[in-house]
Amino acid sequence: MIENVYIVIMAGGSGTRFWPLSRVDMPKQLLKIYGEETLIQQTIARVSSLVPFNRIFIVTNKKHAEQIRFQVPEITKENFIIEPLAKNTAAAIGLAAVHINHLNPDAVMGVLSADHVIRNTDQFLNIMHDAFKVASMDYLVTIGLKPTRPETGYGYIESGETIEGGELATGRVIAVKRFIEKPDIETAKKYLRDNHFFWNSGMFVWKTGRILEEIGCFMPALSQGLKEIEAAIGKGDEEDVSRKAFSKLESVSIDYGVMEKSVRVAVIPADFGWNDVGSWTALDEISQRDDGGNVIAGNVIDIDSENSIIYATDRLVATLGLKDMVVVDTEDATLVCRKDKAQDVKSIVERLKKRGSEEYITHRTVVRPWGSYTLLGKGERFQIKCLTVNPGARLSLQMHYHRSEHWVVVAGTAKVTRGEETFFINPNESTYIPMDTKHRLENPGKILLQIIEVQNGEYLKEDDIVRFDDEYGRE
Amino acid sequence: MIENVYIVIMAGGSGTRFWPLSRVDMPKQLLKIYGEETLIQQTIARVSSLVPFNRIFIVTNKKHAEQIRFQVPEITKENFIIEPLAKNTAAAIGLAAVHINHLNPDAVMGVLSADHVIRNTDQFLNIMHDAFKVASMDYLVTIGLKPTRPETGYGYIESGETIEGGELATGRVIAVKRFIEKPDIETAKKYLRDNHFFWNSGMFVWKTGRILEEIGCFMPALSQGLKEIEAAIGKGDEEDVSRKAFSKLESVSIDYGVMEKSVRVAVIPADFGWNDVGSWTALDEISQRDDGGNVIAGNVIDIDSENSIIYATDRLVATLGLKDMVVVDTEDATLVCRKDKAQDVKSIVERLKKRGSEEYITHRTVVRPWGSYTLLGKGERFQIKCLTVNPGARLSLQMHYHRSEHWVVVAGTAKVTRGEETFFINPNESTYIPMDTKHRLENPGKILLQIIEVQNGEYLKEDDIVRFDDEYGRE
Repeated sequence: MIENVYIVIMAGGSGTRFWPLSRVDMPKQLLKIYGEETLIQQTIARVSSLVPFNRIFIVTNKKHAEQIRFQVPEITKENFIIEPLAKNTAAAIGLAAVHINHLNPDAVMGVLSADHVIRNTDQFLNIMHDAFKVASMDYLVTIGLKPTRPETGYGYIESGETIEGGELATGRVIAVKRFIEKPDIETAKKYLRDNHFFWNSGMFVWKTGRILEEIGCFMPALSQGLKEIEAAIGKGDEEDVSRKAFSKLESVSIDYGVMEKSVRVAVIPADFGWNDVGSWTALDEISQRDDGGNVIAGNVIDIDSENSIIYATDRLVATLGLKDMVVVDTEDATLVCRKDKAQDVKSIVERLKKRGSEEYITHRTVVRPWGSYTLLGKGERFQIKCLTVNPGARLSLQMHYHRSEHWVVVAGTAKVTRGEETFFINPNESTYIPMDTKHRLENPGKILLQIIEVQNGEYLKEDDIVRFDDEYGRE
Repeated sequence: MIENVYIVIMAGGSGTRFWPLSRVDMPKQLLKIYGEETLIQQTIARVSSLVPFNRIFIVTNKKHAEQIRFQVPEITKENFIIEPLAKNTAAAIGLAAVHINHLNPDAVMGVLSADHVIRNTDQFLNIMHDAFKVASMDYLVTIGLKPTRPETGYGYIESGETIEGGELATGRVIAVKRFIEKPDIETAKKYLRDNHFFWNSGMFVWKTGRILEEIGCFMPALSQGLKEIEAAIGKGDEEDVSRKAFSKLESVSIDYGVMEKSVRVAVIPADFGWNDVGSWTALDEISQRDDGGNVIAGNVIDIDSENSIIYATDRLVATLGLKDMVVVDTEDATLVCRKDKAQDVKSIVERLKKRGSEEYITHRTVVRPWGSYTLLGKGERFQIKCLTVNPGARLSLQMHYHRSEHWVVVAGTAKVTRGEETFFINPNESTYIPMDTKHRLENPGKILLQIIEVQNGEYLKEDDIVRFDDEYGRE
């Protein structure tokens, strides 16, 4: 572990690029796209040998913070830095820098994305060690990745002279000549041949004091806002001050706001199997392909497809003779698109927004700290859910104004609190929770509890819930 | 109405070509593929101005007969001719001929498929009138369709000399020179240019006496079997005799068994917008296309697709930049295939059979004479269904050995019989039906009754049902 070092995980994400697997409520970082853990779980695990958990901070919005906490319980609530509004990376990074600098004015912070794949962890850690060393020489350090294809979807970094003075384990550190926005294909091809150019990975390392100074130079409005927020840290009105300050800010990336302007920027060339998993076609690079060049997952019957990505869950997907296609199937929505159009999935999401469909917001199955629920069906005044409660877990003590609930236990044993009573129900037994009645569902047993819940009422949305007591600190 | 005329509707069908919309339990004829009614409903409606309903016979198997009766209640149970085993068209047609000949030895029968589309009904009826006239001159009459493309999926008829003697309203009747099996593409192209060649539509008209004679000449084994069956008609053992006779038969088409060999075969050229709807790509011809040449139905968001067929139900299907593709989405399965591979959908069904999946047999929503049910979910020892019962309808008085049922009413009012009790339950009320208990569910009201049924038990298949009384004559 290195002294004074902190890690900041940027965990925003709008959930559009991996639709229909990603949703507004379930952005990419929360998905198992690569390996057995979600991307954010992998990101946290990867840096946990660099710093202790209490020096890992997660920057995200209030909504996603809850979901992230279920996935990475190692990170305590205090280490979540909540963006009051989405104002791009400069504001988010500035906010994190202010908080960490307040804790430790000698801090060095590494900024990482929650939703990238890195296949070579050892190499990544070596690079981070070197980056901390260079950052301690007052540089703003970026990690530059050696291009492997003429990618037009990334920004590039042009490097200049090697910087002397740091003994780097992984190779050189080079002064940055300039940052370049997404190039056209011809330019990208040129960059690929020229070894002065690197992909801008969005991974940065610097002293918190340095980045705040640079923000002071190049982004005075943000700097002012951050000062107001810093003054409010630990006082009761921090959330309000923070929201007010953010509401005045423009949306600017750290690249545009600071990096392109600063004169003391260094790049460390790296090659650790990085992938930003920017669209479904990224699976071609990070997943196992079959003989036909296909990436196939889930309940799929395929005949004679080539070079396609076919991602299913439990529902059956049958494919026949596909070429260069992407098929993604989820419980409530299916995407079929040409591979070369995979970047345009966001326009589908736009359409869904416009027509007010829910399929871009949430999944039919929603994970909760106590287990999960799946919407099985709904009608005008009713809704059916299957609730799965983990052994030992319990839902909040709660009440609904607009709905009553019938519960039928189909597996496990339920402990039910209803008004003043407490009782148990077993498989093939049922109970009824009237409206306006405090109730709680609990799995006191050793196996999963499964309950079919039939809700009746005029209003059936999730926000008709009054929580009186919650194990998981939800309001 | 023409005297002595009978119509036989061939309603077999394995449900493979339109999978996943068609299933073993729901073959093409039972689907609304074209227009607002199912194909068999349209077929019956089309011939109902030729003959009264009691002269329309439906040849099908026992399983499909029930489903067909719900769709075409005009045809009474007596007019269903049940194939004990599927033995191809010669046996099925012979069976129908024997039955009709038994009723009326002067009968002329028209044989039609239950699952073809005919867009010009008037023209069709005119052709049928002419065909009956020619059949009365002791010809075996076929309806030959003018080819509109070099189709390699059909058999062809080569015509010879015009037959004199019949005054036909629709044109000529021509002697058949020979029947030709499915040609290769070069031959099909030649046939398209030569006006002596017609598609073999599988529509036939003849006297029942004539076809039985011809079967006697060319198919002695079938002829023998049919004689045994005829002798048993109206006696108690008809079903057994019929099964025994069929079990000895080879599977032979009427074309191969009789038509190719007979010397007195005529063809009436026709052009009435016929389509056998042989695969999903048939929708290109019978459906409305959008500006991009796409046929799109159901809950679809499409961006920039061309010349594709996108068929959805309630689930969301999003498509992006497709070209010449077929996408068919149903509750439990999705098909994505290249248009030029649409004929190979049957190989998907083969795979499903091999792996023992149910998605080729039945749909999640199953129509019953009293309404329908939808499987919402299932686990090892439970299953959840939504039952919709039509106003005034009632399920059979029944019992299950292996499952108990929880019912929650979510819309309408239910009248429940449970053992000796009868009572009503309203929305947001529930009841419980233990195993081994006679029960009945009824909708006494004026609006749809919807019930959520949670089944618990060790064995949950549909065949665990003992029916004591059924409105719809089911056993």
